[in-house]
Amino acid sequence: MSSSKHVSRRQFLSTVASSAAAGVLARPSLSFASNSPLPGFFDVGTAAALAWQDQGVINTASSPYAKLHSVPVRAVTIEQGFWSKRRKTNIERSIPTMREELEQHGRMDNFRRLVGKSSEPQKGPYFSDSDIYKWIDGVGWALQSSVQPELRRTTDSMIREVVAIQEPSGYLNTYYQNDRVSLRMSQHDQEVGHEMYCLGHMLQGAIAYYRATGDSTLMDAGARMVDNFVIPNYGPEPNQKPIISGHPEIEMALIELYRTTGKRQHVDLAGYILHGDDRWKIEPERIVYMFCGTPFTSRTKLEGHAVRAMYACCGATDYYLETGDPEYWKTLNTLWEDLVKRQMYVTGGVGARAQWEAFGDAYELPNAQAYGESCAAIGNMMWNWRMLAASGEAKFTDVIERALYNGINSGMSLDGTRYCYRNPLAFDPAAFQGFRGSPNIRNPWYDVTCCPPNIERTFSSLPGYFYSTSKDGLYVHLYDNSSLDWHLEDGTAIKVQQKTNYPWDGSIALTLTPARAAEFTVYVRIPAWANGASVAVNGKPESAVKAGEYLPLRRTWKPADRVSLNFPMEAVPVAANPRVAEDRGRVAVRRGPMIYCMEELDQERGVALADVSVNFSEHSREFRNEYKADLLDGIVVLHHRGGAYELASASEALYATVNPAPRKTRPVDLTFVPYYVWANRQPSAMQVWVPYMTT
Amino acid sequence: MSSSKHVSRRQFLSTVASSAAAGVLARPSLSFASNSPLPGFFDVGTAAALAWQDQGVINTASSPYAKLHSVPVRAVTIEQGFWSKRRKTNIERSIPTMREELEQHGRMDNFRRLVGKSSEPQKGPYFSDSDIYKWIDGVGWALQSSVQPELRRTTDSMIREVVAIQEPSGYLNTYYQNDRVSLRMSQHDQEVGHEMYCLGHMLQGAIAYYRATGDSTLMDAGARMVDNFVIPNYGPEPNQKPIISGHPEIEMALIELYRTTGKRQHVDLAGYILHGDDRWKIEPERIVYMFCGTPFTSRTKLEGHAVRAMYACCGATDYYLETGDPEYWKTLNTLWEDLVKRQMYVTGGVGARAQWEAFGDAYELPNAQAYGESCAAIGNMMWNWRMLAASGEAKFTDVIERALYNGINSGMSLDGTRYCYRNPLAFDPAAFQGFRGSPNIRNPWYDVTCCPPNIERTFSSLPGYFYSTSKDGLYVHLYDNSSLDWHLEDGTAIKVQQKTNYPWDGSIALTLTPARAAEFTVYVRIPAWANGASVAVNGKPESAVKAGEYLPLRRTWKPADRVSLNFPMEAVPVAANPRVAEDRGRVAVRRGPMIYCMEELDQERGVALADVSVNFSEHSREFRNEYKADLLDGIVVLHHRGGAYELASASEALYATVNPAPRKTRPVDLTFVPYYVWANRQPSAMQVWVPYMTT
Repeated sequence: MSSSKHVSRRQFLSTVASSAAAGVLARPSLSFASNSPLPGFFDVGTAAALAWQDQGVINTASSPYAKLHSVPVRAVTIEQGFWSKRRKTNIERSIPTMREELEQHGRMDNFRRLVGKSSEPQKGPYFSDSDIYKWIDGVGWALQSSVQPELRRTTDSMIREVVAIQEPSGYLNTYYQNDRVSLRMSQHDQEVGHEMYCLGHMLQGAIAYYRATGDSTLMDAGARMVDNFVIPNYGPEPNQKPIISGHPEIEMALIELYRTTGKRQHVDLAGYILHGDDRWKIEPERIVYMFCGTPFTSRTKLEGHAVRAMYACCGATDYYLETGDPEYWKTLNTLWEDLVKRQMYVTGGVGARAQWEAFGDAYELPNAQAYGESCAAIGNMMWNWRMLAASGEAKFTDVIERALYNGINSGMSLDGTRYCYRNPLAFDPAAFQGFRGSPNIRNPWYDVTCCPPNIERTFSSLPGYFYSTSKDGLYVHLYDNSSLDWHLEDGTAIKVQQKTNYPWDGSIALTLTPARAAEFTVYVRIPAWANGASVAVNGKPESAVKAGEYLPLRRTWKPADRVSLNFPMEAVPVAANPRVAEDRGRVAVRRGPMIYCMEELDQERGVALADVSVNFSEHSREFRNEYKADLLDGIVVLHHRGGAYELASASEALYATVNPAPRKTRPVDLTFVPYYVWANRQPSAMQVWVPYMTT
Repeated sequence: MSSSKHVSRRQFLSTVASSAAAGVLARPSLSFASNSPLPGFFDVGTAAALAWQDQGVINTASSPYAKLHSVPVRAVTIEQGFWSKRRKTNIERSIPTMREELEQHGRMDNFRRLVGKSSEPQKGPYFSDSDIYKWIDGVGWALQSSVQPELRRTTDSMIREVVAIQEPSGYLNTYYQNDRVSLRMSQHDQEVGHEMYCLGHMLQGAIAYYRATGDSTLMDAGARMVDNFVIPNYGPEPNQKPIISGHPEIEMALIELYRTTGKRQHVDLAGYILHGDDRWKIEPERIVYMFCGTPFTSRTKLEGHAVRAMYACCGATDYYLETGDPEYWKTLNTLWEDLVKRQMYVTGGVGARAQWEAFGDAYELPNAQAYGESCAAIGNMMWNWRMLAASGEAKFTDVIERALYNGINSGMSLDGTRYCYRNPLAFDPAAFQGFRGSPNIRNPWYDVTCCPPNIERTFSSLPGYFYSTSKDGLYVHLYDNSSLDWHLEDGTAIKVQQKTNYPWDGSIALTLTPARAAEFTVYVRIPAWANGASVAVNGKPESAVKAGEYLPLRRTWKPADRVSLNFPMEAVPVAANPRVAEDRGRVAVRRGPMIYCMEELDQERGVALADVSVNFSEHSREFRNEYKADLLDGIVVLHHRGGAYELASASEALYATVNPAPRKTRPVDLTFVPYYVWANRQPSAMQVWVPYMTT
């Protein structure tokens, strides 16, 4: 476990500057292709790109259909507060221990084997290379927030080992080199073998690393595979063989490569893959499951493998951002409506079914049986980030926040070393059967270890999600103690300081310091849940504050102008549409962006979760807040006087002929904790959706 | 579609007699091994068996731990009434059309190929031979109820084609002959290849056919495979290789073979398989899934593949019936408690999960996502039939009746040509994705066509489930217009006539006619649901009538004595244990043994099932009966004045922050039909569990 030294932002930026390629400005700035450290990479005229260190999580700076443009991760410093704890754990514990796990499970030996440096057989599933790339992805974003010389050296060395196996053809994939060359890119292997998926993650990891370090070694290798191996041999032309991405991922990666290196053909290739190629017949079930192989614009609902579907939607939104194809935008909005009306858990998780790790039917959202793969919630956040870039609409940010604080945040233990693959909304440790018989919902390792490094890269890149710029100003998406040091699109430097105890508290003080007094708009996000929010600028209340929208504050901003936000933070019940079968007669408890849950170990002794109810009779619907600094790294706990059945359900028959009547209950104190902290103590039953009584 | 000629019972028996092997009594009688048409088959001293035509569905006549003994199928004639329609359809439509399907899908060509009579490749999955055997099973029982010369000839011919491929070693399985000999009985193929499963179904089908016809051709072939191929090579001895049944089935088949031919080693072999052989290491997940491979007596709950689990329980109960091993009885009762307390649908279906066709966690009983495979409900009935034989306890018959009228009966369309593989308890045709993209829940064919012939054999053998004999008298298990012509265990001939309109009506008139006045006990079953039932003998009311028990009526019975039963038949709500997540706040409606459901097409125009509620306020809880002779082959429909949401749920958000309050409803007429008739008209939404309101 390496321990990172915390350095000031100033120190950090000067270190970045000294370690970066020559000729690059140390200070973030608008710099165009001509300033690029990679001569020849940019095709000015089709895409103009920012210098590497100015590119955000997605680089929409030159995307013609992006209303919002990313701010680089390094432009935002997250300070002592809610996310700093998670991110400190991520860099100090999660990333290092995951590297050890990857080594122990032979993920790097897979590369070494091919150059004679290891005699171990290929380990892990055929997509194991992607584990390494996703980990590098996490490292890349992390290196924008703190200097980690040892981590940098280790990763550089890993990258050298990866690129060492690249064939002269450009091909690079440990599973399909050597003895499996003959299987490479067959229809069957394209459908199941994840070759394009691994390439996509190589590109994404490489781009993250490049944007942090200016080192394009891995990106060059990825681009070589695209340009020398894929494009000459695969594509829509008669002399090319068809491509099926199999597990979507390559689409968004290709477009991000275009956004980094400027070659338009990468967008075209992504478009071709998103459209599908009908020269190969694909089974209808596979088209559903893979969420590819048929024109993306023919989709009408979310279905099939949830991560595949979310990644396909990411790629399709990226494609829209570059092309403005209205059919894509229409389809994306149809699918998004399906997401928020019929397919998303209250935690922002998606993918109801363990079978095929898939979306279920409309409103099929079981709790204990929820799959809610961490990767799928992350895919949901990534997709909504792109929809937000395209539209500037707060409804997409609401989904990002919902997923981030709940269905994603739950995926990593508080100590940063154990991960949920599934994120159910109810849990019975007696019934649970985990991977390979593990009794634990959180495990340090999965042989399919897609989720852990995915969470790591999400936490690493998080600062990049706090702000965007637009033609006319600045968007504030997320709230936490933090500082922005960036500039508006007209070049005016701007700093923004956030002071808050969000999400535990609803008041946020923003201090805006433009380099000079200037007229522009600050769009502050009012979450959809924040009915009754108030906003004041320099102490003067704003009218027309609407939940679920960005409040545009247009004025001449002067240094040290203040924006105060106040969001109501009482705990409230959330009801689901009655079509959600398991949630009838139940509520989830939400406080701010946080969905709460009950863990049995917090309840009165002998009270089973199956037997409790929230009480919504006239005088009993209160939830009392209590901040507990020493519990689960510091959380607001909720207390409520509810009820418990006098007769325990476990002792009763499965079916009984009865005249329905409210069951007899006795009053009990119920305790709720935020969903994301569940399963960090001894195994215990958990539920998000709690029955309620009204009499 | 052959049309069967209905013949009188007298005509039928004389036909049986003339077509049977010489020396066999035409009239059912207690006849022992010495009367067998198969000299040498019986090993007197280890098992005494009845003559073939006197053996019931399971032949427990000589089972030392059986309290109840089967009555042969031919001893009971089901007359015009509820089951006669289904059984007429079964013999006239289902069995013939299924034979055509089997031919069309190459199931017989698989046999012909091996003797050079077909050049078609092997068709269907590796267990396809079992489809043929299960169909023969259905034919066998059917031939006890009506004379079907053409069907008999066809089946004889099929049997000749089957036995023609038997190798000199005794081996017989189309999938593992010819080019797949080397795979035969490897550990992998024992686990997944269903070789023992196919042998088990061959034996069961053969035994059914033998018990109907006296023709032992197929049974001899099966016994040869057991005696010449299996026993010399496989078993517990050091010179034998281990056996894993993979898909339990062989266990009960071997014991039934013993009950037919008297070789004790078949019981021992079943016991060895039920115990498992630790010489081969089996993955723990496989032990769960396969429900074999570890000592049966180490099981503590139902889990894994539901049909495998049910068949294993059948075999284990058969083993108990022959050996009296108390550990088996203990385990069987533990598993049965798990069944009825935590794992069984209100329809008697089992197996909640589509993934692995498996039992879920305790109380995991989703409705729309219910798997409830028809075969699993049948396995449930078969297991409970064996538990009943061992104990004489009515709680087992309650499960039989529940499964039979609901979760099994739903599996075949009213026209007898389309089958449910899954039997969900809620359905949305817009969401449903059936096998190979079929939009239909009922299909004439499945490539895994286990369920259709399983339903056929169940309906064919149904008369055999109506009665049992015991040392001291006669048990009456099921009710329908019917007549019994059999004898008590002391040899006294007895006829029982049932006159009833059951299950539409609760009154049943039994007329008992012993050959002479004799003292014995008639045990009439009072269903568990029949609280308030009354019983009278020759008009004189009985006291101490208890629901869920057999009422013992001990007296000297004289010809034409009358027993009148009266069961309450009002429709009543059934509530599930609150631990069943989807059933909270809902009720199922039961009337007699029938579980009802709502189909959307029966409701007021524009009313979605998702929006309706049953009304249980003081004056509204009535269900009005209406017998509709022309609807769905004649059913009692239930009418109820319930409510529908004023605001349709489909138009509402997925989540809303609300103070829970009863939703506004308007009164609507709700219509219920028996669950078994669902999906026999145009596709329509369906639900068994209906929300209720109490205010």
